[in-house]
Amino acid sequence: MRQEDPVAPTAAAEADAMRRAVALAARGLGSTSPNPVVGCVVLDAHGTVVGEGYHQQAGGPHAEVHALRAAGDQARGGTALVTLEPCNHTGRTGPCAQALIEAGIARVVYAVSDPNPTATGGAQTLRTAGIDVEAGLLEDEARVGNIAWLTAVKTGRPYVTWKYAATLDGRIAAADGSSRWISSAESRADVHRLRAECDAVVVGSGTMRADDPHLAVRGIEGAVQPLRVVVDTEAAAVEPGARILDDAAPTLIAVAEDATTYLPEVLRLPRAARGLDIPALLDALHARGVRSVLLEGGPTLAGAFLAAGAVDRVIGYLAPVLLGAGPAALADAGITTITDALRLDVTETVTIGPDLRITAVPSLKES
Amino acid sequence: MRQEDPVAPTAAAEADAMRRAVALAARGLGSTSPNPVVGCVVLDAHGTVVGEGYHQQAGGPHAEVHALRAAGDQARGGTALVTLEPCNHTGRTGPCAQALIEAGIARVVYAVSDPNPTATGGAQTLRTAGIDVEAGLLEDEARVGNIAWLTAVKTGRPYVTWKYAATLDGRIAAADGSSRWISSAESRADVHRLRAECDAVVVGSGTMRADDPHLAVRGIEGAVQPLRVVVDTEAAAVEPGARILDDAAPTLIAVAEDATTYLPEVLRLPRAARGLDIPALLDALHARGVRSVLLEGGPTLAGAFLAAGAVDRVIGYLAPVLLGAGPAALADAGITTITDALRLDVTETVTIGPDLRITAVPSLKES
Repeated sequence: MRQEDPVAPTAAAEADAMRRAVALAARGLGSTSPNPVVGCVVLDAHGTVVGEGYHQQAGGPHAEVHALRAAGDQARGGTALVTLEPCNHTGRTGPCAQALIEAGIARVVYAVSDPNPTATGGAQTLRTAGIDVEAGLLEDEARVGNIAWLTAVKTGRPYVTWKYAATLDGRIAAADGSSRWISSAESRADVHRLRAECDAVVVGSGTMRADDPHLAVRGIEGAVQPLRVVVDTEAAAVEPGARILDDAAPTLIAVAEDATTYLPEVLRLPRAARGLDIPALLDALHARGVRSVLLEGGPTLAGAFLAAGAVDRVIGYLAPVLLGAGPAALADAGITTITDALRLDVTETVTIGPDLRITAVPSLKES
Repeated sequence: MRQEDPVAPTAAAEADAMRRAVALAARGLGSTSPNPVVGCVVLDAHGTVVGEGYHQQAGGPHAEVHALRAAGDQARGGTALVTLEPCNHTGRTGPCAQALIEAGIARVVYAVSDPNPTATGGAQTLRTAGIDVEAGLLEDEARVGNIAWLTAVKTGRPYVTWKYAATLDGRIAAADGSSRWISSAESRADVHRLRAECDAVVVGSGTMRADDPHLAVRGIEGAVQPLRVVVDTEAAAVEPGARILDDAAPTLIAVAEDATTYLPEVLRLPRAARGLDIPALLDALHARGVRSVLLEGGPTLAGAFLAAGAVDRVIGYLAPVLLGAGPAALADAGITTITDALRLDVTETVTIGPDLRITAVPSLKES
């Protein structure tokens, strides 16, 4: 099916273009939910990049449409590299498979197959139209870049990243409660990037009381503000005038079904043995389009999420500081003996200013 | 003074040789105290390596003597690269400066000046004998390799490395006390290397009771066993039959001056506000020739050492594990508020099997 052309894109040129598409896709993190992030690069018939695009926000054009628009007539006979299988359904925008066909694209290479039952079939539509279709190029990289959305599709709940900042001896504050600052300015700036890439930021009543956090993204131009969520079971931690109640970002206060609150609008959830029902919270967030959650809660809320099996990734900012007293980063995760410990695999360790940022995911080896 | 020779060692050849000397010196770690570790490489007049040596054990020949023996007549007119200024004093072995002169060495390059008042003057003796002497080549690397001895000379007490193994949330055991194993087999093997490089391994009564540790070096061929030290203030933690009392390595039990013990031989030390007087313990160890201590004690003893300002280096093995309950790696360091936190600088982060090994030293920025 592929057009005969001695200077058609080489495998290396296609891999380069897909790498670029993966990078483009990442620009959409935090603003595309409930959609995935997607990047697209269009090469002309000679293998030259003639269009780039990414999905910028839900309701807006898909990556392929952006890239095809940029390419114009040069797309004819060319190759489209897309991080995710082009969609086949007509949502708020038309199906991308149709747009690729209409643009005269000769070959489509995508990284990850679309797991979403309402969107699949794009590859088949393209093939039926006579387009050469290949799947799986840089699949692992593209999968990592879209891990939140892919996990959410698979599990039906948002992808949860638990972030904490602690000393080398695992403390998040000193004995007197003081914690400003354990981690460095560089680490705190990095957390704002994490917030910008997530759809919602969640804290518990303990953090609410101790820190009166603001939780909005600062210092990142054009960032879409995440939904600020407080798990305030007894409706007692969010006081009038709390910083989180300002209009810098939307805010959602989750309280127990039977709690009494002065707030006009809250999310009422069933109680669990302790606190609120975490799966019910995640269901409610998912229903609001949230696909990625940054859990910035203190030790108790983190323990509840972990005990519920609702943490997909852990990002720890470890400051080279020792305290010897003060609250630990994690409490009450329901683990009492070493054989029940939650084992993780470290996926990345980087230096952020004077601190270390350690990323880990629940170990697949775990039984 | 340097002999005219068009193929005399280049600066690069000398740096290579010094790098090799630093590596050779490290082989002596754990067996040379109270002496430093020293490495020496001899180049002939053409810059070819003709002899290598390192100080293997206190009382044995110094590095220069080993290297000169290996070089034989080829040392004549050659260059000696030594990690530490050659000694000028006659101890159990003759002065190295004299040996270099007698071997006909034309040039001596050393990395670190000898800070020991009884040994200095070697460089001057060499110059007086007409030898070309240069100091400071790879000084930083050589200093790091000899940091325990150099620190001990400066402070008059052994260099103390606090080693701990903890989960990402800073726990050294689960709520029920179980801790086998938090860190990996690879990390545990690495600890045996640390032990082999130190003169003494120190634990407290809590670790004694919880783990009945053996503390000898296993799995490292030719390792010199460290002195095993238990800080057992009340003389109540080391029970008859404790593994530490076997003959795999020497053992020293430190108890309070007024404690009653069944042990025939103990080290009696003054009490501190809590436990034993740490500076007195380090004095006693220094007097026994100990220049480097590996503190493997639990949270309380580590806290006492840190509160006494007696930790020079921290090595943490962080296992990608979460517990949410159980004892923390560090307790009672006398720090109650964040501004009093002990700030460190991370000097190295490496992967050891699935774990991270983080090395840090007290920050110089600290006021």
